[in-house]
Amino acid sequence: MTLQSEMTGWSAEVDQHFTRVLSGFADVPIVQAMRYATTGGKRLRAFFVRESARVCGADISRSIAPACAIEALHAYSLVHDDLPCMDDDDLRRGQPTVHVKWDDATAVLCGDALQTLAFELVSDPACHDDPFVRSTLALTLARASGAAGMVYGQALDIAAESAATPLTLEQITELQNGKTGALITWSATAGAILAKADTDALKTYGDALGLAFQIADDILDVTSDAETLGKAAQKDADAGKATFVSLLGLDGAKSRAETLVESACDALSIYGSDADHLRDVARFVIERRS
Amino acid sequence: MTLQSEMTGWSAEVDQHFTRVLSGFADVPIVQAMRYATTGGKRLRAFFVRESARVCGADISRSIAPACAIEALHAYSLVHDDLPCMDDDDLRRGQPTVHVKWDDATAVLCGDALQTLAFELVSDPACHDDPFVRSTLALTLARASGAAGMVYGQALDIAAESAATPLTLEQITELQNGKTGALITWSATAGAILAKADTDALKTYGDALGLAFQIADDILDVTSDAETLGKAAQKDADAGKATFVSLLGLDGAKSRAETLVESACDALSIYGSDADHLRDVARFVIERRS
Repeated sequence: MTLQSEMTGWSAEVDQHFTRVLSGFADVPIVQAMRYATTGGKRLRAFFVRESARVCGADISRSIAPACAIEALHAYSLVHDDLPCMDDDDLRRGQPTVHVKWDDATAVLCGDALQTLAFELVSDPACHDDPFVRSTLALTLARASGAAGMVYGQALDIAAESAATPLTLEQITELQNGKTGALITWSATAGAILAKADTDALKTYGDALGLAFQIADDILDVTSDAETLGKAAQKDADAGKATFVSLLGLDGAKSRAETLVESACDALSIYGSDADHLRDVARFVIERRS
Repeated sequence: MTLQSEMTGWSAEVDQHFTRVLSGFADVPIVQAMRYATTGGKRLRAFFVRESARVCGADISRSIAPACAIEALHAYSLVHDDLPCMDDDDLRRGQPTVHVKWDDATAVLCGDALQTLAFELVSDPACHDDPFVRSTLALTLARASGAAGMVYGQALDIAAESAATPLTLEQITELQNGKTGALITWSATAGAILAKADTDALKTYGDALGLAFQIADDILDVTSDAETLGKAAQKDADAGKATFVSLLGLDGAKSRAETLVESACDALSIYGSDADHLRDVARFVIERRS
């Protein structure tokens, strides 16, 4: 099967699991907004969870809960990031953002409940029989997404907006490692946690790929348009924010992303051809058009 | 020792634990706001965790992590609830709210990271040796605070604001069971989870006390002032919202709260005099002035 059909198939399973899980809540606007916010997207993080589970020999069907957890966590971060007091975005995945379709209060609570759902999913015995696995998934997910992970990256991003000078390459790398990288690395190591296997190689893969992903995003921000992206384009350039493209140039950024993808793929050598999907998706990350 | 000195002593230990935990993060504004938002308050929920641990025979020192977790969770809910797009409150615990002291974006992220911290605290091996205990604490905390618990109550609260008719007693009870009750019940049962003991009696206590707590809040809203409360008073009455006082009258509400506290205390009979602190704090909940 091709990478695309594998990803589409897994995405459909993630959709079904979200439908099942969310149908357990009362049908109030906040839950409708949770359903809306978890629909669509590339499901890259969910795919990393499944493929890391596969290369580590874990039961793939058992990766559905952590796969949905990371997509719920990611969705919460987007819903809050799009708020008027944050990035103030009207468009996400080609659709109106949650606060535009409902209102700001619903968007705040929808994001809050999506974060909670992520921890509920990995802590539920349905996720895995072994409570050590569940607890480790929850702990690592919390560390990747909290004030030492994703929120730390967002804090640096906010601080950068009022800084006197644009960020350096080192600073923007630290920012993006938190804002985007930590959750991608979690996705790529979750399968190893499920299999109680060593996470080192997958962590190296995730760290390199997380950065490549953000560089690719910065490239798309200047080379693509809103219709293709499904969200506002040229935002960073218009805001005069430092990006990998502004710091390295377009060719320099492309070359850096390619080098990172190569080192991400190299890290997977211990898994042999079992890791071909992970290698393919790494290349997809920098070749995608949206 | 008196209830007050016990509560003050435990509150100081909670403060110290927060200081230790938060010093592990970079000193960025969001982390400063997290420190600010977790300072002060009655620490009632933290005390419920400790006392439930004590009556169940768990090591009290082991209740510090879940005690801080529930206070972090509670603080996140207040920070988000105070936002301009939610209740729009300027004053909390007698101090400017987080979005007033910093800004809305910092308040959103501060609340987000406080929620994450709650799950990190209970999932960390430092909380408890047994991963089943850690995983159960995380799962029950998620269920109590998410779209079937606290956020569900908040969703009903938002819906009530635009409803054509005021809520009935049954509806407001359902709303408050979610918004306030679920986390109080979690606090009162966390100690039993730590001790791997039965949670039934403490759940009955927590459910009754959570409702008594909210009725007492409604009474204080009409009988107290902002200076004593440390937050805006008369808000619900001014907004024409249905409350236990508007539905039962002041005397009826007081009588209902007293009955609930009695049944909360009765539920603790299996613990004998070990549960005297829990009985005292139940009475304190409806006799407090702020």
